[in-house]
Amino acid sequence: MKESIKLGIFGLGTVGKGVVEQLRKNGALISQRLGKELQITKAVTANPTKDRGIDLSDIQISSDPKDILDDPEIDIVLELIGGVTDAKSIVLEALQKGKSVVTANKALLAECTEEIFNMAYQSKGLFGFEASVAGCIPVIREIKSSYSGEKIEEISGIINGTANYILTSMIEDKADFQVALKAAQDKGYAEADPAFDIEGTDTAHKLIILMDLAFNGLFDLKELYVEGITKITPLDIEIAEQFGYTIKLLGKAVNTDKGFEGRVHPTLVKTSNMLASVRGAFNAVAIKGNFMGPTLSYGAGAGAYPTASAVMGDVIEISRNLLQEAGQLVPPLASMRDQLSKKKILPMSEVTTEYYLRFSVLDEVGVMSKITTLLGENDIGIRSMLQKGEAHSPKDPIHVVIFTHKAIEKNILKALAKIDSLQFVAEPTNLIRIDTE
Amino acid sequence: MKESIKLGIFGLGTVGKGVVEQLRKNGALISQRLGKELQITKAVTANPTKDRGIDLSDIQISSDPKDILDDPEIDIVLELIGGVTDAKSIVLEALQKGKSVVTANKALLAECTEEIFNMAYQSKGLFGFEASVAGCIPVIREIKSSYSGEKIEEISGIINGTANYILTSMIEDKADFQVALKAAQDKGYAEADPAFDIEGTDTAHKLIILMDLAFNGLFDLKELYVEGITKITPLDIEIAEQFGYTIKLLGKAVNTDKGFEGRVHPTLVKTSNMLASVRGAFNAVAIKGNFMGPTLSYGAGAGAYPTASAVMGDVIEISRNLLQEAGQLVPPLASMRDQLSKKKILPMSEVTTEYYLRFSVLDEVGVMSKITTLLGENDIGIRSMLQKGEAHSPKDPIHVVIFTHKAIEKNILKALAKIDSLQFVAEPTNLIRIDTE
Repeated sequence: MKESIKLGIFGLGTVGKGVVEQLRKNGALISQRLGKELQITKAVTANPTKDRGIDLSDIQISSDPKDILDDPEIDIVLELIGGVTDAKSIVLEALQKGKSVVTANKALLAECTEEIFNMAYQSKGLFGFEASVAGCIPVIREIKSSYSGEKIEEISGIINGTANYILTSMIEDKADFQVALKAAQDKGYAEADPAFDIEGTDTAHKLIILMDLAFNGLFDLKELYVEGITKITPLDIEIAEQFGYTIKLLGKAVNTDKGFEGRVHPTLVKTSNMLASVRGAFNAVAIKGNFMGPTLSYGAGAGAYPTASAVMGDVIEISRNLLQEAGQLVPPLASMRDQLSKKKILPMSEVTTEYYLRFSVLDEVGVMSKITTLLGENDIGIRSMLQKGEAHSPKDPIHVVIFTHKAIEKNILKALAKIDSLQFVAEPTNLIRIDTE
Repeated sequence: MKESIKLGIFGLGTVGKGVVEQLRKNGALISQRLGKELQITKAVTANPTKDRGIDLSDIQISSDPKDILDDPEIDIVLELIGGVTDAKSIVLEALQKGKSVVTANKALLAECTEEIFNMAYQSKGLFGFEASVAGCIPVIREIKSSYSGEKIEEISGIINGTANYILTSMIEDKADFQVALKAAQDKGYAEADPAFDIEGTDTAHKLIILMDLAFNGLFDLKELYVEGITKITPLDIEIAEQFGYTIKLLGKAVNTDKGFEGRVHPTLVKTSNMLASVRGAFNAVAIKGNFMGPTLSYGAGAGAYPTASAVMGDVIEISRNLLQEAGQLVPPLASMRDQLSKKKILPMSEVTTEYYLRFSVLDEVGVMSKITTLLGENDIGIRSMLQKGEAHSPKDPIHVVIFTHKAIEKNILKALAKIDSLQFVAEPTNLIRIDTE
């Protein structure tokens, strides 16, 4: 049996440094659980001489990937550089060379799913990617192991901490979107270019990974419906609250009779739903199975230490395996390779759910009748309704909010296209989907 | 490689039947993930001819344990009979004979920890017990695998569905304890003899298992402090709510500088804490680690299907392992055998926390002064205070509620012993500990 497990890290940014620190601090505890020592022997980074504020003296640092990839002593390669191009060649080459790989890179897995996982299956390598979705929440291990006896029916995740942080400030500080975004940027919760987070792209990356795992499929990221949180206003939040809802950016996947729904959009969630209690930069993933019923897992979805923790969990699992030369026990994408097939996502127009519709209209006679007639003609039932605000002049719009019964999205869009072209409509209608759980 | 994995089930009660049904319904899906078929070939039960309302025609049923234990074809033994005596001999014998074992039996694991786990280590057998704590919540796999890089600092669990169901009805229906208990019994959420659940025993069993796993130790169940929910009144619930708290029966373990706290008692939990949102018969376990920070996992803590689901997760994990003859990769109690040691639980008198104290006193001059003086003399600081109710006659007690700052339990008990012996005290003071998270 090996005397220790040797790790080579690509990237000494936030997460890479977190892994080094965790091993320094918890190394003794980890050895009690593993029986052997974990050692980070090498790191590769673009700038090897940079002072990173932590002790790296026993790690050989270079800028040449070969130093890790060609070193037969390195057992596990940690890909923590992010981005797609370089990360892809590192992961593929490491697996091909028979090394085990751990990555936190959701963009890579979502954009190059087939290439990466084909190699993971082919090479029979040990491949950990728990840190790629929802930080320290062990959702990937849950689906691959704990819930492996389940038909998974539904996944709803708050899996982008930045978006949830912004929405939480909008709710708790009654701030509007731009103010909340600015505050999140000032506090380091949002990037200078926040598009990835607030437009839903990052949530989409993570959702597609979960769908592949949960539904024994290979789904196409481009087929996901993705809508960000930029159009949410304090008024929507206030009205939602009044009706017992909170607004969250959800990644949602549903295994329906018609096909697989896969969608990322702001969603009205009942305040009694556990997801509504997830505040600030935290993440949570709710998974429903046909035997276990509803579950939820909650924790820090990002940050140096929580992400490092997920990486370390994978490293220890793989190390236990390597020490006993056990081989690949759990298929990389949860199912046997020959059982994985390309699967389609239901077009958004075919999704059936409930809707929150906020119409901005002039306060004229006949407005309500026209709106409700057009909804009725498109098979859209009204569950509740609210008129908000008073017009001080005939040109001031008022807000009419309608909560619909379940309706099919294409009918909603047809009705809204007609309604929004009417003369008394001051602004395009704000549509937010409702979580029917 | 084996062509299938054969299971022998002890017990065809609620959970046993659930496992059979899950395999019938999800068998095809499970085979896609496992690559081979799972088959339940035999069952042993006290009453083999009883009609159980499900199709058992392809399972050979008998009342003789040897039919399973001596069958070399059986790969995994499922111990689902509950109780301690018979279950113990089944588990020990199966492991000794080189079989893998899955159990849902928390009483067995908590009361016979050393015997069972000594055998699990010695035999190098595969031993799954995810279903023993918190039903389908994969908390055992979390601690053993996902959080294996963490120093676990704290565990707080709502791990008894019956107690949580009763407390939830007391809160939501403003029912008092006996009424809520009766309703829970009528609906099948509480047993005819509910002592195990409402006195905290079941929570204690589960907590001790989690402590062994989280703290690399063997703890003694008898050292746990255990207090049930029978003394909680609607008045306590109402006052707690007024101050932003919900009352939950928590199993709590804390790794402190002074030693390991381990305690089960009703607890005031802040309504903003995720644990406060856990309603009805659901369970949740919050775990805090030094790198990942706070996490929480939520789901059905009992019931045929959710428990079966946890059993099935273990069965599939073990099967994957058996198919590749990988051996015992993860130590049964998370740490290597030689790293496990007997550990002490801090006596309750040494625990430091905040307290809710409800005094029932006659409305006399000087009462408040005496109470507050005695608290002060025992180093107990007052955080907030409330006087509730008006005496209609001098003999009617009124309620004085004090929320303390952090204090050491022995001081609290010393002060209460003195206060409760004072003449103006009408009833013993109701003490509820506060979760300081």
